[in-house]
Amino acid sequence: MVMEVKQSLEGRLKRMQKNTSDTGIKIAVMSGKGGVGKTTVAVNLAACLARDSAVGLFDADVDCPNINKFLGINGRFSIRDGKIEPVDRFGIKVISPASLQERATDPIIWRGPMLSNAIIELLDKTEWGNLDYLIIDLPPGTSDVPLTVMQSLKPDWVIIVTTPQDVSVTDAEKAANMAKELDIPVLGVIENMSGDIFGEGGGKRAAKELGVNFLGRIGLDRKISASCEHGKPAVLEDSNLSGVFRGIAEGTGLLQK
Amino acid sequence: MVMEVKQSLEGRLKRMQKNTSDTGIKIAVMSGKGGVGKTTVAVNLAACLARDSAVGLFDADVDCPNINKFLGINGRFSIRDGKIEPVDRFGIKVISPASLQERATDPIIWRGPMLSNAIIELLDKTEWGNLDYLIIDLPPGTSDVPLTVMQSLKPDWVIIVTTPQDVSVTDAEKAANMAKELDIPVLGVIENMSGDIFGEGGGKRAAKELGVNFLGRIGLDRKISASCEHGKPAVLEDSNLSGVFRGIAEGTGLLQK
Repeated sequence: MVMEVKQSLEGRLKRMQKNTSDTGIKIAVMSGKGGVGKTTVAVNLAACLARDSAVGLFDADVDCPNINKFLGINGRFSIRDGKIEPVDRFGIKVISPASLQERATDPIIWRGPMLSNAIIELLDKTEWGNLDYLIIDLPPGTSDVPLTVMQSLKPDWVIIVTTPQDVSVTDAEKAANMAKELDIPVLGVIENMSGDIFGEGGGKRAAKELGVNFLGRIGLDRKISASCEHGKPAVLEDSNLSGVFRGIAEGTGLLQK
Repeated sequence: MVMEVKQSLEGRLKRMQKNTSDTGIKIAVMSGKGGVGKTTVAVNLAACLARDSAVGLFDADVDCPNINKFLGINGRFSIRDGKIEPVDRFGIKVISPASLQERATDPIIWRGPMLSNAIIELLDKTEWGNLDYLIIDLPPGTSDVPLTVMQSLKPDWVIIVTTPQDVSVTDAEKAANMAKELDIPVLGVIENMSGDIFGEGGGKRAAKELGVNFLGRIGLDRKISASCEHGKPAVLEDSNLSGVFRGIAEGTGLLQK
């Protein structure tokens, strides 16, 4: 019985890996600490890359998925012949567990193995098509779901997001060290919410301590907060922020200069 | 074999429940979304109550524990005769998994069952003494660790923290609905980071939609951020914030007026 379950899991994992083999360069956005701007970075990076490339965006935060809200997506996936069709939004192919929920405020109270199963299932059943990039928005922490994504999907890169504060920098380094232990290279560190209130420089310090690139700084700005509320990526409305993300994408070689 | 493991778990759970039976009123601080200020609320509420009462503070965020940083605690617990002695800081008895780590930036890469085991073990082995209040700082989300704390420790109350933004309010309602499903009453909602950048009013709206009390509003303020960095609760330095927390503690009947 235990052996059967194990074989079925391994089979599913292999199917998922086959199903995501044409999804291009896979980049996981990670932070350790919650609420530092992973989703802001994931959504805006995806929108920036989607101008010239085929981009998928996967919301791996199963119990508190926020990608749909940030992109103004309501309602559910369509499922055809057992395959899930991603929602096309601003030229991005989006899959979020939020599309499985009837009401956004219903809690998803699952233990770790169920969360991990849901991730594998969604990645396996989605009709991604050929992508140039798949951006994965991870939940906070360094446990179940980030571990499942890293071990099973094997992203090509991890981008680390931190706010300028010490407490966030420590957790960011923890997240980067987790990626390193699992042999996923770190593309670099982005500092979010930089400015008067939370200070600045933490992102650069984290990058230096980790021996990776510092990718750029996003200011604490009401326009960015408002764009999340309005469901449209700030890079599509704000030329400053668009420049920051274009700089990040060019600096890392994801976009040609 | 499976039966033996189950009996050993049940035995440990019972011991933990016995060990925490004199810890007074147990209040879990919860949010759904990460980075909205659970730890700020937990630390400042504990410091506010500790002026007149015996208070314990338990950091249940096993993989990214931040309580020690917020209270300027370095180093490990002392363990005597197999019992853990909480760190006494600002009159609060503090237990954080951070005190188990050699270096703060080492990742704790555990699957859900190990996280839950660590929570039960720490609560069981700690020499709490007689407390009036035990404040529990939960990790983000509505899965493993919040579920373990609610099912095993059975807090008397949950306090919900949200920022003013829609996306945080949705996750806050999700967290409150989880508590309700598990029969833990919600003491009320606190709005954090209120002001120009993120707006205001989300906390009041969440409280109204949930049919619970709105407890108070904490502004987005560089003094609060700085106090976290300096390792001293802001209520001990700032009379405005001290007033807000005293109001919350009095309004909920936790402190006598």
